[in-house]
Amino acid sequence: MTTAHHAPGEARPGGRTARTRQAVLTAVFRELGDGGFAALTMEGVAQRSGIHVATLYRRWRSTEGLVCDLLTDLSADVPLPDSGTLPGDLQALAGSIAAFYGEARMRRLIEAVVSAAARDPEAAAVLRTFFGERLALAGRMVERAVERGELPADTDPEKVMSALGAPFYYRILIVRRPVDQDLAASAATAVWAAARAGAYGRRDDGPAHDASPGG
Amino acid sequence: MTTAHHAPGEARPGGRTARTRQAVLTAVFRELGDGGFAALTMEGVAQRSGIHVATLYRRWRSTEGLVCDLLTDLSADVPLPDSGTLPGDLQALAGSIAAFYGEARMRRLIEAVVSAAARDPEAAAVLRTFFGERLALAGRMVERAVERGELPADTDPEKVMSALGAPFYYRILIVRRPVDQDLAASAATAVWAAARAGAYGRRDDGPAHDASPGG
Repeated sequence: MTTAHHAPGEARPGGRTARTRQAVLTAVFRELGDGGFAALTMEGVAQRSGIHVATLYRRWRSTEGLVCDLLTDLSADVPLPDSGTLPGDLQALAGSIAAFYGEARMRRLIEAVVSAAARDPEAAAVLRTFFGERLALAGRMVERAVERGELPADTDPEKVMSALGAPFYYRILIVRRPVDQDLAASAATAVWAAARAGAYGRRDDGPAHDASPGG
Repeated sequence: MTTAHHAPGEARPGGRTARTRQAVLTAVFRELGDGGFAALTMEGVAQRSGIHVATLYRRWRSTEGLVCDLLTDLSADVPLPDSGTLPGDLQALAGSIAAFYGEARMRRLIEAVVSAAARDPEAAAVLRTFFGERLALAGRMVERAVERGELPADTDPEKVMSALGAPFYYRILIVRRPVDQDLAASAATAVWAAARAGAYGRRDDGPAHDASPGG
């Protein structure tokens, strides 16, 4: 269930542009590990990566841009499973997310991105787009479950995937306690039970009546 | 279901110390509304509140301290219901949270607090303590449900309350889309279904076997 993530810059084929990106993202990753987002500067990344600072400004615009690109790069380390059943997929994905955020540096990364978004509308837009795309992609898992008859036809895939992810970010950003496999198991079990009960129906239909707390 | 929150400084009886606090928190609230956390300074709050800046430093230490105290003050606006059934309580509390964060200024407030925590260990400790206490308090709702026989005896109250809150913070901080009553209804329905299925069992017991995605 644990997924070792690649250090940025490893095992990614590509030309000079790709190598430049990986050198830069590796430097960002290490700078964040050393000093967090507050200490991250374009100059520090340039020095560490050996890439000219003008190139950094041209391609990434700001430290917010660097951190968001790093997030995109690292998200490839949380694979989307296809085990044949939704419970199996939810358990596998939750386990991968827990392994990813089990590392302090990954927690600091998401904290840095969220902080950047609070200050900078462009960073906020990057974050919104990133998670929007990621949720849409992960939603395929739910669409397959609906096709297999595991879930009601009106299930909203993005609601299901949001519900799976939410507990991890709440734990990291709000409650500020460690992410562990117990949280992953609980999140996957909860989402499966709630999805079967119709809690994630599409907006126009609302939740299934017999599962509504109000009903 | 909507709960109008008090402006800081209103309807809180108390002596001179309490009046000073409310004047300061009202100023913090307005400064955050104008410029967000990035523009918040001790001097700006002193000027707006008419309270000497030395008093601010002595009592709140930093802008992080001010924002965390404001959060504590405003949380009194999200009452903990006691409707007689857990589904009713979950629905009411989720509705109150949605109403609270339906306002842009409240979203900016939580963003400011989370950003402060990412930079400042003391702000992180305040946030952790605040939500820890809040979850423990809200957990009474779940304890009553267990006493009424609505939920398995091994249900962990803080897990249930964390699961109810998580979708709101995920929506605000990560997905960055509006918080609405549809999210509240979905969160309450989901938590009720998952709790009945045993997803929030205490750690040593694990989730109920028949509800496990792996089972």
